[in-house]
Amino acid sequence: MVSSLRLPTLTSLFSPSFARRSTVSLRRRFHLRPPLAAGFSAQSAASSPAGTDDRVQNKKSGRVQDRGDTDRVITPRSQDFNAWYLDIIANAELADYGPVRGTMVIRPYGYAIWEAIQDYLNVKFKETGHSNMYFPQFIPYSFIEKEASHVEGFSPELALVTVGGGKELEEKLVVRPTSETIVNHMFTQWIHSYRDLPLMINQWANVTRWEMRTKPFVRTLEFLWQEGHTAHATPEEAENEALQMIDVYTKFAYEQAAIPVIAGRKSKVETFAGADKTYTIEAMMGDRKALQAGTSHNLGQNFSRAFGTQFTDENGQRQHVWQTSWAISTRFVGGIIMTHGDDTGLMLPPRMAPIQVVIVPIWKKVDEKTGVLDAAKSVAEALKAAGLKVKLDDTDQRTPGWKFNFWEMKGVPLRIEIGPRDVSSGSVVISRRDVPGKQGKVFGISMEPSILEAYVKDRLDEIQSSLLQKAISFRDSNIVDVSSYEELKEAISLGKWARGPWSASDADELRVKEETGATIRCFPFEQPQWTRTCLMTGNPAEEVAIFAKSY
Amino acid sequence: MVSSLRLPTLTSLFSPSFARRSTVSLRRRFHLRPPLAAGFSAQSAASSPAGTDDRVQNKKSGRVQDRGDTDRVITPRSQDFNAWYLDIIANAELADYGPVRGTMVIRPYGYAIWEAIQDYLNVKFKETGHSNMYFPQFIPYSFIEKEASHVEGFSPELALVTVGGGKELEEKLVVRPTSETIVNHMFTQWIHSYRDLPLMINQWANVTRWEMRTKPFVRTLEFLWQEGHTAHATPEEAENEALQMIDVYTKFAYEQAAIPVIAGRKSKVETFAGADKTYTIEAMMGDRKALQAGTSHNLGQNFSRAFGTQFTDENGQRQHVWQTSWAISTRFVGGIIMTHGDDTGLMLPPRMAPIQVVIVPIWKKVDEKTGVLDAAKSVAEALKAAGLKVKLDDTDQRTPGWKFNFWEMKGVPLRIEIGPRDVSSGSVVISRRDVPGKQGKVFGISMEPSILEAYVKDRLDEIQSSLLQKAISFRDSNIVDVSSYEELKEAISLGKWARGPWSASDADELRVKEETGATIRCFPFEQPQWTRTCLMTGNPAEEVAIFAKSY
Repeated sequence: MVSSLRLPTLTSLFSPSFARRSTVSLRRRFHLRPPLAAGFSAQSAASSPAGTDDRVQNKKSGRVQDRGDTDRVITPRSQDFNAWYLDIIANAELADYGPVRGTMVIRPYGYAIWEAIQDYLNVKFKETGHSNMYFPQFIPYSFIEKEASHVEGFSPELALVTVGGGKELEEKLVVRPTSETIVNHMFTQWIHSYRDLPLMINQWANVTRWEMRTKPFVRTLEFLWQEGHTAHATPEEAENEALQMIDVYTKFAYEQAAIPVIAGRKSKVETFAGADKTYTIEAMMGDRKALQAGTSHNLGQNFSRAFGTQFTDENGQRQHVWQTSWAISTRFVGGIIMTHGDDTGLMLPPRMAPIQVVIVPIWKKVDEKTGVLDAAKSVAEALKAAGLKVKLDDTDQRTPGWKFNFWEMKGVPLRIEIGPRDVSSGSVVISRRDVPGKQGKVFGISMEPSILEAYVKDRLDEIQSSLLQKAISFRDSNIVDVSSYEELKEAISLGKWARGPWSASDADELRVKEETGATIRCFPFEQPQWTRTCLMTGNPAEEVAIFAKSY
Repeated sequence: MVSSLRLPTLTSLFSPSFARRSTVSLRRRFHLRPPLAAGFSAQSAASSPAGTDDRVQNKKSGRVQDRGDTDRVITPRSQDFNAWYLDIIANAELADYGPVRGTMVIRPYGYAIWEAIQDYLNVKFKETGHSNMYFPQFIPYSFIEKEASHVEGFSPELALVTVGGGKELEEKLVVRPTSETIVNHMFTQWIHSYRDLPLMINQWANVTRWEMRTKPFVRTLEFLWQEGHTAHATPEEAENEALQMIDVYTKFAYEQAAIPVIAGRKSKVETFAGADKTYTIEAMMGDRKALQAGTSHNLGQNFSRAFGTQFTDENGQRQHVWQTSWAISTRFVGGIIMTHGDDTGLMLPPRMAPIQVVIVPIWKKVDEKTGVLDAAKSVAEALKAAGLKVKLDDTDQRTPGWKFNFWEMKGVPLRIEIGPRDVSSGSVVISRRDVPGKQGKVFGISMEPSILEAYVKDRLDEIQSSLLQKAISFRDSNIVDVSSYEELKEAISLGKWARGPWSASDADELRVKEETGATIRCFPFEQPQWTRTCLMTGNPAEEVAIFAKSY
């Protein structure tokens, strides 16, 4: 059944209303299909019935109507995943397109998710011995040419500054696509002896890659990321560091973003331009396409040889340093949307949510208003004091039903409803975003701060782990073990991931890509115990690989 | 008396050793004078005499000698302020030059100061109702041309991207020098009615201005900053916002950075390109030149008219919004260096210091080592647990005397020394960075955590306010009240700031600049009560202005 939910213009907590037709514009700008016929499942209407009489203000229509309610719709996810994704980004005010093709404006609600990513990782990076610093974004073109495979990988995607201060520059400048070259230029000046190692730094920065096919968050001309860079005295230390950082990313994905990524090693074909080995975390999106959500590279001595980054070891010998680099970007925000969102809109894991609890006060008569608002305010204050991220939506320009729909669409994990009867009984009603309808709604939770705080924190923890469990089930039911190319092709054609033993050539890998659209996402760290024969060649295979279509 | 202190290469907490001759290179790169003959006052040697026998390891030489001790010196501040500044930046490992002329690498110790600025301001911005977001850095060239005075102000300084993905672009792109134009392009799409106002956002970003004369932190081709942008329904609201934000900056400067800035309004000549009014905080550096340390602009309707940013007011009328923008940049780090530093090196206000307390354990005999290190570690843990930023320098590759000098040069506010006798007596020795020699040194402070913690916090508070008081005295003794142009010229020629009544023309203002090198820094908010006659024309003057040479 397909009906349509319309979300009117409003001033949200974070930012002004999204321009009308902006969804359409987003699609156009990012070269995607035009919007489909307006459609939206009835789930949202079903999931937010106000429980008592004084909660429902638009019972007859069955859905919220309001001024500005014109052409805003969310395409059902099952109908068109891409259109759904763009609708979420527009309606939840996560991002907008920039004036230059393929660029993106990250709006406050989307940026707050990126800030949650930063806050967590920044602490972890420091705990693991890294310091933040900042390198210039302009890199002499000659630097990019110094490492052979690096220039091959990046030169088609470069943005070049050729004019500065009104004059043609003698040497054109690259706007950094990544910073290995300039980092090595500086490391060469800073590193002299083994005492200067390990050198472990990170920077939060913008980078530019001239992509032809773009998609908000997932692939944009300019994006935000962190890039770690380290130099070590031995290959073992560099390998340990590369593994340590992919592990930091894996823990972050599971524990914070509730995304059950599969961590593993990239194939030779898919390895970063300039690295010996690339480790990756691969996430399964709601359409079962893979998203490379973070990478960690063992660079070996490739850049240190190209840039002459040497140190004097304990025996007085000159050696090239061993290096790593690793990165997570704003792409991860796209991963969160596409992992947890549903037809109602965004669904945020509590640990990533800019707002964890929204409080909706409900009153009908004027003489009820003060009591309800006072109670709502004191509940808000108590929860804020407990360290929770709380939004009290006390505007009287919107109906409670409208607010329910709006904050569900914005993915807020918990909603607290407070009406006159609740004030009398000293209790509140609490609804979970991840459990639609009456099932997710509990009445009569005490307003007493310590009881309410404990209840809310328990529910947030439950939602956090429930989202992860749901994503694990979805992932595992969509990975097929295959032992032949035929089985692989069938799995991919069904939209699934195929996992099978692989020891075939790079050429065979490219053939799979051409014939099925799938690539090797990784050789997962977790390997099965059974004996293996390459699915393509029948030769012995030491590892299974995972194949999937990807973003 | 001039002697020389040499600081050898070492592996610091934050980063590897600074390359030899890097100070010289810094000077060369930033087009400054070559280093003067090595010279350094004896103050540092005097200020760090180890108090007891077991603290001095190089008594005979009177200064620390170590491997790598080659050509590292800090020019005395009084001898050559610029050379001193560059020496501090190099020796304290705050920054290095990038490979492209005028660009800068911000090293971990310098970046940590920037992070302290960010941490404080980010909270204040949110408390005052602003949300963070992110705009693309590439701006279509045509945008810059839309606001007449804006294009005039910025076009000579632009970096242009003309090639992307291997192709010549149809429209060249500006690498943002500031974001008013692209912000207004987006605001125009987001703002519809008075309900969408005020719209108050901020972004932390890099910006590029093709400066010809550069200086680390103070003026670089690329720098980091925050830029706030707001839109309001009335001119009064915009004016209040512009004033509110210069007030946030002023409080930050006084309370956190211990810099007694003078807040005021810029003259017409010095107003931001595109603003109606510019408010500024002006700081007096150690050489008595002024540093514009932060600005807040009332943009009026200049950009909203250029970009058609309109809203429907409560009466249904279309109106252009009223706007502000405001910024503080990495230049502020330069301001901290040049306000508080002395011949010994950097001197950091405790609230800005990446390390507030350094602990130096001291032992001579092997059997003393364990006891001393254990005590030092437990003191470090206790202070860290109390929320202090603590570094335990327990390497045995350096002498205590060397460490004293090194951490003084890095500007750490407090040093705790622990030797065998201190372990026996359960006490420590504490030295203040801002009070040289024996005067700043106190013996016998109990190691008992609660006593030590309270003592250390009190001392840090004292240092914080002492640095501010010292800077206020310096500032006030270098501002001269003038009532004629002759007096103004004399004050400026003595290197001072001149404050006097001013109501003369823009042409007169430019004449002062040509003849004296000084500009109007601001019309300070704090105005004297006496009657005024313009120092230049003798006409009535409503305000006094402050004139000074500036960075």
